[in-house]
Amino acid sequence: MADITILGAGFMGSALTVPATDNGHRVTLWGTWLDDHIVEAVRRGEAHPKLRLRLPPSVRVYPHAELAEALHGADLVVNAVTSEGTLPVLARAFPHLTAGTPMMSVAKGLLRRRTGRVDTISANIAERLPRSLRRGFRLVTVGGPSKAMELARRVPTAVCYASHDAAARRLARELFQTPFYAIQETEDVRGLEICSAFKNAYAIAIGLCDGLEKAGRWEATYNTKAALFAQAIAEIGILVRRVRGDAATPIGLPAVGDLFVTGVAGRNRTFGEMRGSGMPTDKVVTELQARDELTEGYAAIRMGHAFARQRKLRGLRLLEPLYRIVYQNADA
Amino acid sequence: MADITILGAGFMGSALTVPATDNGHRVTLWGTWLDDHIVEAVRRGEAHPKLRLRLPPSVRVYPHAELAEALHGADLVVNAVTSEGTLPVLARAFPHLTAGTPMMSVAKGLLRRRTGRVDTISANIAERLPRSLRRGFRLVTVGGPSKAMELARRVPTAVCYASHDAAARRLARELFQTPFYAIQETEDVRGLEICSAFKNAYAIAIGLCDGLEKAGRWEATYNTKAALFAQAIAEIGILVRRVRGDAATPIGLPAVGDLFVTGVAGRNRTFGEMRGSGMPTDKVVTELQARDELTEGYAAIRMGHAFARQRKLRGLRLLEPLYRIVYQNADA
Repeated sequence: MADITILGAGFMGSALTVPATDNGHRVTLWGTWLDDHIVEAVRRGEAHPKLRLRLPPSVRVYPHAELAEALHGADLVVNAVTSEGTLPVLARAFPHLTAGTPMMSVAKGLLRRRTGRVDTISANIAERLPRSLRRGFRLVTVGGPSKAMELARRVPTAVCYASHDAAARRLARELFQTPFYAIQETEDVRGLEICSAFKNAYAIAIGLCDGLEKAGRWEATYNTKAALFAQAIAEIGILVRRVRGDAATPIGLPAVGDLFVTGVAGRNRTFGEMRGSGMPTDKVVTELQARDELTEGYAAIRMGHAFARQRKLRGLRLLEPLYRIVYQNADA
Repeated sequence: MADITILGAGFMGSALTVPATDNGHRVTLWGTWLDDHIVEAVRRGEAHPKLRLRLPPSVRVYPHAELAEALHGADLVVNAVTSEGTLPVLARAFPHLTAGTPMMSVAKGLLRRRTGRVDTISANIAERLPRSLRRGFRLVTVGGPSKAMELARRVPTAVCYASHDAAARRLARELFQTPFYAIQETEDVRGLEICSAFKNAYAIAIGLCDGLEKAGRWEATYNTKAALFAQAIAEIGILVRRVRGDAATPIGLPAVGDLFVTGVAGRNRTFGEMRGSGMPTDKVVTELQARDELTEGYAAIRMGHAFARQRKLRGLRLLEPLYRIVYQNADA
């Protein structure tokens, strides 16, 4: 039995408590300062407000003030806050971590490093790591199609865990894998992170088609969506090559699989649908923020565009107009 | 201006009249013995019964008895009948063809050759070609995501034309390409055909998830569908390698793009949904036949399974259970 501490009590952090407790581990779920209402609801024995189900009763839930207690004795720490929240949360967590404790991260996105260069989350974490933790630091990043609502309901799910450290990868896999949560392993950390970040951006492009259809500009747009889907996979391939990732990574669960679920369902697609139906971006953002449904794809387009521009990448024939549509209100 | 004769007045043959006439070509549409009601309706000036819209008025429509007239003077002949109908129709067409006239085929499937070996449509056509046509025979095969209903309504569509003959490929592309119908070219005829045939089979696997959901066995199955989608693309990759196809083919429009549209919409998915909800295969087949909606995916699973078995292919971890579910009534 292992002690697992999950940072972030939102969708995915909370859903991961299900396979972990199914495997008999002691699971601690820590909520950020944005998760207070979730922590309180769960502590009162109510359903998790986002997942809309009761978490496994053995899960111990901590509010943000009790971070040190939550991290105490953890055999594995999981970063399950948004990409935006990752560095602020980890900065608070680092003083309480023991050197050598493996970390797993499910955040999907790109962040701006101190130099201004946009890079993957693992690169950003490595940069911020205090000297005391640097030696033997082992990170496992998670990619692949996994909607938290389904994972928490034990719907068959297959994902991909990436790490340069085979032992950490295997440990994380052993802790979480269940008959309904299949885990593949890869060494391609950077490639997987690129897939995870960019699929959120490209899902918005697919959503745009639904919006155009809704606005009556076409009767149906499956052909168009499929063409954009194939183009998105091709562009993610270019991006993965740029970080010297494995060409097989985007063809598998991290891009083909994950873009499928994100492009067909989910809130990034919704963003695209609203924008595609003619609503200007600022209104879409305001409306989704009000519903607490603004997702990572919106920022991912801006960060992804900067990532590609900084590296002078060509052939991104979909990302470029997508940026113009979402950030410069070009007509879809 | 060119003369184009399209054999088969079903969904795709009829939809192709739209880009061809948009480009100013003289288009002849010939209906098989199964298309009589379509030919009659169109000749009466009514909407096409399947596409539910009026074909361009310049299209000349011929019934099956007038095959010789329909083929007379054609600069390009398009085979747009089902894979099952392809060889019987071409056997009747061959005597009326001029040696050297390029042929294009949009049929998607696998057929059993005289030896019993299951192979692609181009291999089957080559085998049946009369001696008089063999010299300089040029075939262009079409793949990629293209629902006829949308193509006929000028929804932006991107497809892939494959031929070993660059001139025939370019000719076909020039005749059909329009601002809403983008055409990529490839030399990988066999790889493209494998993608086209197997995506129909794998779309049924994705449809099974919708059936399981409908039967109340899960609340939602996007994670599962996405995992099956990624696995299907991996397996199509194995199959394409087996015919020495280009590894890039399944990553692009022919598999990633086409499986997206077929797995999300369309009648192969419907087949899977009905079977997945618990209906035995024979009932699904009877019901879909009655609605004239039994599609190629059903046969594609059987033919694809035979194709893989004959070639002793391994690692097809999805095709194997899919065969058992659909042909041996195993539980999904």
